[in-house]
This record gives sequence, C-alpha cells and structure tokens, in this order.
Amino acid sequence: MKYLGIDLGGTHIAVGVVDDVDGILYKDSCPTGADREYKLIMEDMVSLCKKVIADSTVDIDEIKGLGVGLPGIETPAGMSYAKNLYWDGVPLAGDLAKALDLPVYIDNDAHAAALAEVGFGSLIGCKDAIMLTLGTGVGGAMIINDKIYSGSIHAGGELGHFTFMYNGHDCSCGRKGCYEQYASASALIRMGKYAANDCPTSSLHTINGSLDNITAKNVVDAAREGDAAARGALDYYIDCLAQGVISFINIYNPEKVSIGGGLSQAGDIIFDDLKRIVKEQAFNQLHLATEVVPAMLKNDAGILGAAMVAQQGLRA
Amino acid sequence: MKYLGIDLGGTHIAVGVVDDVDGILYKDSCPTGADREYKLIMEDMVSLCKKVIADSTVDIDEIKGLGVGLPGIETPAGMSYAKNLYWDGVPLAGDLAKALDLPVYIDNDAHAAALAEVGFGSLIGCKDAIMLTLGTGVGGAMIINDKIYSGSIHAGGELGHFTFMYNGHDCSCGRKGCYEQYASASALIRMGKYAANDCPTSSLHTINGSLDNITAKNVVDAAREGDAAARGALDYYIDCLAQGVISFINIYNPEKVSIGGGLSQAGDIIFDDLKRIVKEQAFNQLHLATEVVPAMLKNDAGILGAAMVAQQGLRA
Repeated sequence: MKYLGIDLGGTHIAVGVVDDVDGILYKDSCPTGADREYKLIMEDMVSLCKKVIADSTVDIDEIKGLGVGLPGIETPAGMSYAKNLYWDGVPLAGDLAKALDLPVYIDNDAHAAALAEVGFGSLIGCKDAIMLTLGTGVGGAMIINDKIYSGSIHAGGELGHFTFMYNGHDCSCGRKGCYEQYASASALIRMGKYAANDCPTSSLHTINGSLDNITAKNVVDAAREGDAAARGALDYYIDCLAQGVISFINIYNPEKVSIGGGLSQAGDIIFDDLKRIVKEQAFNQLHLATEVVPAMLKNDAGILGAAMVAQQGLRA
Repeated sequence: MKYLGIDLGGTHIAVGVVDDVDGILYKDSCPTGADREYKLIMEDMVSLCKKVIADSTVDIDEIKGLGVGLPGIETPAGMSYAKNLYWDGVPLAGDLAKALDLPVYIDNDAHAAALAEVGFGSLIGCKDAIMLTLGTGVGGAMIINDKIYSGSIHAGGELGHFTFMYNGHDCSCGRKGCYEQYASASALIRMGKYAANDCPTSSLHTINGSLDNITAKNVVDAAREGDAAARGALDYYIDCLAQGVISFINIYNPEKVSIGGGLSQAGDIIFDDLKRIVKEQAFNQLHLATEVVPAMLKNDAGILGAAMVAQQGLRA
C-alpha cells in the first residue's frame, strides 16, 4: 500500500511517496519559512505534495492516504498546535484533505518517528515498545498493542517528564528533576562541563575551542580518548539514562526500547554499559530480557513515520 | 452476567458470586494456610467455590467464568508465581478449570483491584486510568483502552518502581530511589520518624507508645492535630506522592488517577493538596484536567476485582 508522508519541521517541509514494504519511492523538500502565516505554509505543503506525486510517476489513485508528522500536538478535534510554527490551533487536517482529496492523519513527530522504527527500523515486529529520542530534551513514544498510545486526549507520551530526581534540576516544564534533565544530550553537555570544571587538564576545555562550546559528541569522543573527566561524566550520564530505561521496563514491560537521536550513533561506548545495567537491575529480566537497541532510521524517519501515521489512521 | 471471584490472600481465601451489575450476591471465606503445600490450598479453593455456589442459590449454569486475584504473577502460559505462598510456578488455572469445569482467568491482585474500581467504584466509565495502591509498597495498575495493560509478558505495571530520586533510598527491588520509597505508607512513617527526631516535643514520640511504633495513620492524625513535625512530614510526603502522580499524567494522560490503600481514607488532608499540586504542575492541565480520586471499594474489592478478571478474560 502507498501513502504520502509529510515531515513538517521548523526549517524544512519534506514530502515522500512511501510504500509500506519498499519504503520511500520518491521524495522532495522545500523550506518551511516558519515565520510566515499558516495559510502560506499550508499552501506550500499542498504544492509540494502535488509535485512529488507528479514526479514520482505513482498513480494518484494508488495513494491511500496522507500522514503528517508535526512538531507539536494534534487534537482529536483535528486542530494542530505547534509552538515553533506559531500555530495555536489551525485546521491543517481539514485544509489538506480538501486541497488534496485524500484522508489526512496527523500526529506528533516523535510518535511518527517511533512508527517509522516499527515499520522499517529497529522495532519491526514489535507489538509493545518504547522509543526514546535523546536531543535537547527527551522525546518519546509508547507503542502499545501495535499502536501509538497517547492517552485519553492525545496529550500523553511525555516520556521525558517523569520525576527522576525529586527536587533536582529545573526543567522547562516548570517542575524539577524531570528525566530529560538527566538523559538528554543537553544533560550530557552539562555533566561534561561540571566534570571538566574540577579538572583543568581535561581535553574538554579545548576540544571545541572552549568548554562553553562543547557538544554531547565532544564528551563522548573525549571519553573514548581516555579523558578522565569526560569518562566520569559519560559514566554518570549512562547510569541516569539506564535508570530511566529500567523505569520504563518496570512499568511497561516492552519487548524493545529503541534509543534515537544523535547520541544513539555513539555505539558501544554507550550501549554496552546501558544494556549491562538494564540487564542487571530491571525487574524480571530472567524471564523477560527487554532488548535495548539504537534506532536505525536517520534522515528519512520523518517521511516514513508520517506515512505510517496515515497507515495507522486508516487501519483504525 | 455472573462470575465467580476468588480473592487469594496470604491469610484468607475469599470467594464470591458476583453479578456485573449488582455486585456480590453471596460470599464466604476460609484461612489460606499459606505454609501448606500448593495442592492443599488449591483443594480448599475448590471446596470453598463449590460451597459458595451451593449456598448462593445461583444456578451454576449462570456462572460464566472464574477469576482469581493473586498476590503474585500469572504468566501467559498459565503458571502462577506468589512469593508469600511459596509458589514458584504452579498450574493453578488448569487445576481450577478441571475441578470446577469453568473457564479460569488469573491476574495480579493489584490489577484485580483496579478492575473492581472500573466495574464498581471510582473509575466507572474510564477507558484510560491509573490506580495506585499505597501500602507497604506502592502497587499499581494501568487501564488502557478499557483493559489492564501489563506488557508484553505480563510483567509490567510495577508503577512503584520508576526512579523517583536518583541514588536515593535503597529499594526492595535492588535499585535506589524508586517511587515506592517516597510514596508508600512506609515512606510516610519514615518521614514522620525523621521529622520527630529533630523535634523532641512532637506528639509522634508518644502517640503510639514510642516513635518506633508509629503508623502512617498516626502521622496523619498528628498533623491534623497541628503537630509541626508530623505536618512537615505529611507535606513532604504529599508533594512526593503528587510529583509521581504528575509523572504518570505526563506519560499516560489518563482520565482519572485513583488512589487506594489505607492512606486514601485520610480524606481532604491529603487530597486537597494532592489535587492542587497536580492541577498546578502537570502538563496540559488546561485542556486535560485529569481527576485524582480516592478509591471507593474496601474489603470487597478483591472478590469484585477477581470476578472482573474473569469478565475481561472472557471478553478478550
């Protein structure tokens, strides 16, 4: 079956024709121009969809539906909210359906990325799984009985916002000590700076010009080279990440936990310890053995996931 | 529809004939004798079921199935594990089905208690809900799309075992800082002792003979009487409880969170602050407004819940 997938981001709109077995058949993109008014962005989405369908040589009748992955929230009533696009309730689903004469399904981009992993990546075949995306914050999605679970009014799935360190670091959500303050890429940067402050000889002071500029990758790279401060920060970070993964395993008992975001590319230096701690400390690991795996899909995850949003919507 | 429900506890076995509208029609109980071998306990369960059916005057053909709430885990393969009964994999479901000629469904007692609240108590009509039971530990259950969710191999739902205070108090599960170390009745007792240690005039030193003997109810009662140490401990406890409830709301977005266990009887002195903190700090409370409510069912929850386990099993 074929679907149209729109990966709507703050900088680019990417559209692809996706086959649920063969993946992306054709794709194209254009700038979002996020500071423009909603109507103009929506019209560009429509034009790009029409162009992609025409260029793809796929017959329009073969396309069963359109899915959108959105950097925000879609309500059951069909209104789209996206802070970075300044959308405070716009009727995107209705407008796209009218313009393209296709059934339209919209979901959060983190949910779409998880569906992409289920359809084409690290979570193929999973009925119950968790996806965590480590970036500025911690995004997440739960797959329960083959479907994204997002709660009674689609406002759940904020997997980065459970209390992980009571009265800990201030969180963007207004509370203190949320998991994303300890497991995001930003957290690893903070931990690296903290460790290097006590260690003037650490390479973190110079690896990227100054300590102020270090990235999460810098900390991983310095740890790999044997820098003691970086290694200490990374060990602490991996234990925090692992304790959260264990929390989700104890609550959900998923078949797999997939870890996405740039840090998931670090490979064994993170995953060896992460898997060991989970195996040693999660409940019921004798019977259970939840697999912890890196996400597989990179740039195309957005388009693939958006198409899977349509597939799931049509199936419901 | 009528079901037989068995509430299997460490001290008593209670059996009832339950109508899904009218509740318990007839019930009886006997001691468990938990130190006896499995076969004897199982035979007593069978005898008590037969006696209850006979005494109830309900025709046996009207009974659609038998449900059991177990202080342990039931695997999908039909084996029962229960530490307090020394059961390390016994074929209870098969044995009961053979002896009573009824379809048998078994689930954890915390799951059964949650189903009882959905069928007859604080969660009537909820499709998505969380139940937390505050006792020695924190038990829990998730209702997702009208059903208990217990994960890919029925080992999930350990809602008391997410990391709440990284590197915090030792937990019985082997990790540190699990939620149940901060939100159980035992936690409130620990907090009360800690606060009273700094305050020689606190009534907690004498309220139950000595500080060593205080109960969670003692702390609540002393706080109600204006004891400053007890009030401080209770405030801290309620904030911990609330931050965990908010964590579940952020992740699940349930319609309601029901709080059970002895402490839930304390009333407004806990629930007023708990509800206020949740309303102020949980995500999306403008649109969402998850209700936090005390559980309604007391002693009969076990039998009612066990019957609902059968109802749910037959429906699946």
